[in-house]
Order: sequence, then structure tokens, then C-alpha cells
Amino acid sequence: MDYRFSSNVERLQSSAVRDILKLTQGKDIISFAGGLPAEELFPLNAIREAADRVFTAGTGSLQYGLTEGYMPLRERLCQRMAHKGMRVQPDQMILTTGSQQAIDLVTRVLMEPGDIVLVENPTYLASLQVFNLSGLRVVPVQSDKDGMIMEDAERLIQMHQPRLVYIVPTFGNPTGRVWSLERRKGLLEICRRYGIAILEDDPYGDIKFDAEANYPTLFSLEGEAEGGCVIYTSTFSKTVAPALRTGWAMGARKVIQMLAKAKQAADLHSSAVDQQTLSHLLDHFALDAHIRKIADAYGERMQDMQRLLREENLRDLSWVEAEGGMFLWLELPEGLDAAALLRCAVTKNVAFVPGASFYAGEPQVNTARLNFTYTHGERMKLGIHAFAEAFNEFIARC
Amino acid sequence: MDYRFSSNVERLQSSAVRDILKLTQGKDIISFAGGLPAEELFPLNAIREAADRVFTAGTGSLQYGLTEGYMPLRERLCQRMAHKGMRVQPDQMILTTGSQQAIDLVTRVLMEPGDIVLVENPTYLASLQVFNLSGLRVVPVQSDKDGMIMEDAERLIQMHQPRLVYIVPTFGNPTGRVWSLERRKGLLEICRRYGIAILEDDPYGDIKFDAEANYPTLFSLEGEAEGGCVIYTSTFSKTVAPALRTGWAMGARKVIQMLAKAKQAADLHSSAVDQQTLSHLLDHFALDAHIRKIADAYGERMQDMQRLLREENLRDLSWVEAEGGMFLWLELPEGLDAAALLRCAVTKNVAFVPGASFYAGEPQVNTARLNFTYTHGERMKLGIHAFAEAFNEFIARC
Repeated sequence: MDYRFSSNVERLQSSAVRDILKLTQGKDIISFAGGLPAEELFPLNAIREAADRVFTAGTGSLQYGLTEGYMPLRERLCQRMAHKGMRVQPDQMILTTGSQQAIDLVTRVLMEPGDIVLVENPTYLASLQVFNLSGLRVVPVQSDKDGMIMEDAERLIQMHQPRLVYIVPTFGNPTGRVWSLERRKGLLEICRRYGIAILEDDPYGDIKFDAEANYPTLFSLEGEAEGGCVIYTSTFSKTVAPALRTGWAMGARKVIQMLAKAKQAADLHSSAVDQQTLSHLLDHFALDAHIRKIADAYGERMQDMQRLLREENLRDLSWVEAEGGMFLWLELPEGLDAAALLRCAVTKNVAFVPGASFYAGEPQVNTARLNFTYTHGERMKLGIHAFAEAFNEFIARC
Repeated sequence: MDYRFSSNVERLQSSAVRDILKLTQGKDIISFAGGLPAEELFPLNAIREAADRVFTAGTGSLQYGLTEGYMPLRERLCQRMAHKGMRVQPDQMILTTGSQQAIDLVTRVLMEPGDIVLVENPTYLASLQVFNLSGLRVVPVQSDKDGMIMEDAERLIQMHQPRLVYIVPTFGNPTGRVWSLERRKGLLEICRRYGIAILEDDPYGDIKFDAEANYPTLFSLEGEAEGGCVIYTSTFSKTVAPALRTGWAMGARKVIQMLAKAKQAADLHSSAVDQQTLSHLLDHFALDAHIRKIADAYGERMQDMQRLLREENLRDLSWVEAEGGMFLWLELPEGLDAAALLRCAVTKNVAFVPGASFYAGEPQVNTARLNFTYTHGERMKLGIHAFAEAFNEFIARC
């Protein structure tokens, strides 16, 4: 039997990041490629205790749950969101299988094939996958270190009448970029004026290296979920652990109801054991102190990586120091193709992600994303040295 | 801001079953509505021990996992499938968030909007939701107690050239129907001849009341996954526990690869903690003996429900005795609308699902689905009596 596949999935490239992860599985490759949090910092014992409380609660905790997610966890999350200036009720929130599923569900309920979504350039790779899977047209907005350039955003909105703008405004993946307050307010104003939804993806916002820094979300700037244009999503994957696969989306009730209808069809509900575990964790564990600990450790690792790169004196290599998140975004010398560099690097047992994958439209191929949270200490040192060797060999060859 | 939603999600009816579940949450309504397994039979302690082994394995078990799912669980599942005559390798299998997600992913990779899917009539409600969400045209095939009627299936295939046939051939939801061997082989032959994929959904196959009965899957009848037209899906929701949200799909490698690409976009992967828990469970727990215990208990409950219904002497009420699964499918007197009966029943604190929701096209409204696995013993007795009261009042009024 010859299967014919849908044109959208045929066109879909498998994620470069996950393909590299797969290639390196089981091999002793030093990887700066994945967006992996530091395993040794996972609050294993607290999660174990929380999970045990789920089972202590009895067999009822193993039954089917609500599509919208475990109510006590939604209530706790609403309290946490309120501390960040985001006022929502539990019925303005839905729990998802990571924030990745929130991106997919929002796309499925708001968009028709052929509809246009505006994105930062470069942007989160797996969001591009979602948009392609749904047959959208992805239009990149000119962006600089402060976020989308508002003039270009408004020009493209007038030209294309998009239905959605997707952004990662705080410690974006892959660039680590933080949008300025002015740009945040600017996009909000434009989108409200033209009646366009904003999907604000915020998986990294808590991982800020300066504890005192304040980066208000667009959702909090808008003030009210009802009547608002911002749909906000975040996740426990970076602050607790990815294997628990729990994210959430917040927005107007009508949007959440539509997301729930789509989720009912997509998978009925996400793991109720994971949701209950996280609920007990929030009750019995000092998560904010834990997040501070992670963010401090990641800040140090980012400094280590910067220092190691500087010490290698690599010609025409530049980057912007990250203020949070998990990635350093490198610009390589003009004309150097990071994909070719990766092939060379892998022979030296080190991996990263070439930047091209993150672009909608024409890619800037002399870019690369390095994760600084997973590989650390002596291994980071070895890895950066191997990267530098590959880099120098590659330059010499050209 | 006025949101405009995609036409497919606008058209999507929220699942009647889940809406009833939601209404009855927290209230003391005796429910025969949900497809809920018996909570008191969940192997709580074995799951608890298995989960603890996940945490004992260390922090690595909390990291991101493979999109295709935890390899040791896939290996164990392949062994289990081999015992049922289904020969597959781990790379011919993908783990999903319940088999519901498998239905959604198969639809997304095989179908374009407007494509046609053939279904039994009536059929699983949430599969209709998936097909509607993807904008498919659902064409029902005439069906009787032995499955689809082959002449009608072939006629519709010639007429519509569908890309997919969706079936639940063993203890179907809602009817409890078991396809005859002849019909199984018949559909397989026709679909192979016309090059049409079959999605065989088998959540209930293990729940057979006669331990010696043998209902070979279409997947096993086809023999080989490569080159075959059958994609098979099942789940741990009915045999272990739904809250662990783990199902699987099996088929040709190319199909599995496409499902993995779509799943990468949909949610990266399902709960890795749940998958590892189930893997340890399969290593340390006698699952087959447990399944026998569940099936025996459910068989008794089905007998109880039949007896209680008979004792009420309800006029013109009929059903076919279930050989397995979780549901009794009732035919009410001609002209009686089960939705109206439900409204009356709810005032007497008992709920079921009107049959109309399960039909593609014109529904047979004098049908109802009663679950016999969740509510049992004295409560089942009270519930069936309340149902009978509603029934008799309703008949008297008409």
C-alpha cells in the first residue's frame, strides 16, 4: 500500500534540533544543541513526594480528568499569575501538554489554512512547524535586539491583514532577545487597533539572571483577559521538569472554551497524574526559591560560556550577552554557513543548532544557537574548545 | 476584541458525554454516561511502586524525551503485541496521549480538508469530533451487529474514493458490537484492493468477558506492518488507568515517521513520567492477570445491569448482550427521543448518553448508551430503578 500524506505534513521538515538530539543519543557528543534544562537541578525529591501524595489520595486520582485540566492546579496557577500582574480566573485558563500544545491549539482554533501569522525573525523553530502543519503563511517582521520593529509590523499588518502575531518577548528562543517596554506597548496598541490576536509565548520569563529585573508581559500590560487580544502561554518544563509535560494558556473565556473543544478532540486531556503532582508540588515546595536557584546557576553558566568563547579569540565571532533564558545566539563571520560548520563540529564530538532553521523566509546562515544550561563545568570547557577547533579549521579551509 | 474562530472549531459540538460529566461533577448524580473504568480496580499500589522506580532512576528521568516515546516501553509493548499476533518493531510504533491523540494525528497526516472518511454507524463520538475539526466529510456505512455491511462499504468506496476507514471492530463504542471474522477479512480485502488506509481503534479488545474468546485484529490478519494498510491504535486507559494518558499507534515505518513529525509540532512528546511508570509497571506487575480480573468484574456488572433492566419490565426496550467492553446499547420504543428522556432522568439524579451523538448523518434518536463499569452494586440498582421511573413517566406522558 502506497500512503499519500497530507501536503502540509509532507512539507514539514523534521525539527533540526530534535534530529540532532536523536543522532547524539547514546553517543558521547557534547551537545549545546537541545533546549534542555539542567538535569541535576530538577527538584527530584520534591517531585517524588508530590507524586506520592497523588497516589495517597486514592484511586480517584487515576481516573479521567477534565479537558481544561485539574482545577486545584489551575487555581494555584492563577494565584501565581496574579503575582506577575496577570489577573485571570481558572475558567480563563487551560492546561496543556507543554506550551507547545498551546501553540498548536491556538493555531487550530484561530486560523484557517492560508491565513497569515506574523512572527519575529528569527523565531522559535517548533512554532514554525505548527504554523506549517496548519498550512499558514508565515510572514516575518523585521526585528532587532529590542523586538519587532513597529513600523514594519504595522506595514505588514496593513498589507496582509494577519489573524495572529506570535512572539516570545522575554529571552526569546533562539536569540535570547528581551523586548523593550516601548515595543511591548507598541505591538499591543497596534494589535488592539487592528483587532489582531497576539500569542505571547513565555517559557523563559522566570529564568532571569537579574533577580530585580522586571519585564512585564503583554498580557499584564493589557490588564484584562476579557476583551483582550493577548493569549498567554507558559510551562513548567523550564522551572520544574519537562517530563511532566505541563503548560498552560490564558485568555478570554471564549478563547479558552474553543481551545477546550479542540483539545477534547486532540487528546481529551493531558496527563492528570502530572497535573496533580504539580499541584501538590506548588502546595509543599518553595518553587520561587527553586527558580531563583536555577536562574542563578544558569546565569553563571552563561558567563562561563561567554568567557570560554572569548578566551578562544575566534575571528569575527560575536554575540549579545543573554539576560536570561537558555541560549546564546552567535553571529559567525559573514559567508560562513553554520550548517557546514556543524558537520565539522560533529566530527569533533560537539553539537549546536545552525541558526537557519529559526528563520521564516530567507535565513541568515552565519548564525548559531548555543544552549548554556545543560552542558556545564569541565564538559562545557571541552565542548567550547572543540567548537573553537572546528571553527578555526573551517575558517582556514575557506 | 472580537475573536473570529476557525470554521471547523466553530462547527464542532462539545462532546455530549464530557458536557454531561461536567454537569454531574460534584453532584450526587448516578451516572451511566461516562466511559469511565472502575476506579476501585485501578492497580494503585503497583502504579505507585512503578512511579517510585522512575524517581529512583534519578533526575535524567525528568528530562525531555523522544517524540516517538520512551523506548523501553515501546519494546515491551512490541512483545505484548506479538502475543496477539501483531508483529511490529519499536520503530513501527509511536506513543501518544491516549489513543485519542493517535486518531487526531493519523487524521492530520493522512487527510486534507474535504477528504472523506468512512465510519461505522453509530461510531465513537470523539472520533467524529476529530474528523470535524480537520474539516473532513464523514460518510457512514450501513452496519449491523456483525460490523459494516461489505456491499455498502464497497459501494461507498467506489462512489467517494475515501482516504481512510475508521473502525472499532471489537466491543465498539457505543454499541459493544464485535465484528465477525468474515467482515474483518472482507474490509481488509476491499481496502487493500482499493489502496485505502484503515484506522483500527482497539481500546476495549482486552476487556473480553469470555477469557477463551479470540477476536483477531485486522492488523494481525494483515500480518505485516510494512506494506500494510492497517494502522492500529490502543491504550492503557482501560487496562491500567486513564490518568496516565498513554496510548500507542502501530503501522508502516513511513506512517510512524509522519505521525512523529506531526506530534513534534503538536506537543513535542507525551508525559515521559507516565511512559516510564508504565514501563516499570510492565516489568514488575502481572498485567494480564489484572486485565482478567477487570474483565471478569465488568462481565458481572454487565450481567447485573441486564438483570436489573429486565426486572423493570420496560415496554419495548431492547439491547444486545455485550461480550466485552464497557457499554450496553439500548433501543428505546420507536419515536422516543433519548435526549428528552435524559432531561427527565437527570431530575431523578441519573444520567446516560443519548445515542444521537454517535451517528454520522441522520441519527436514530431512540437509542441510548449505558456504561456498566463505573457505577455498580447498590448504586447501579438505584440508578437503573431511577432510569426506569423516568422511562415509565416519559412513556405515560407521550
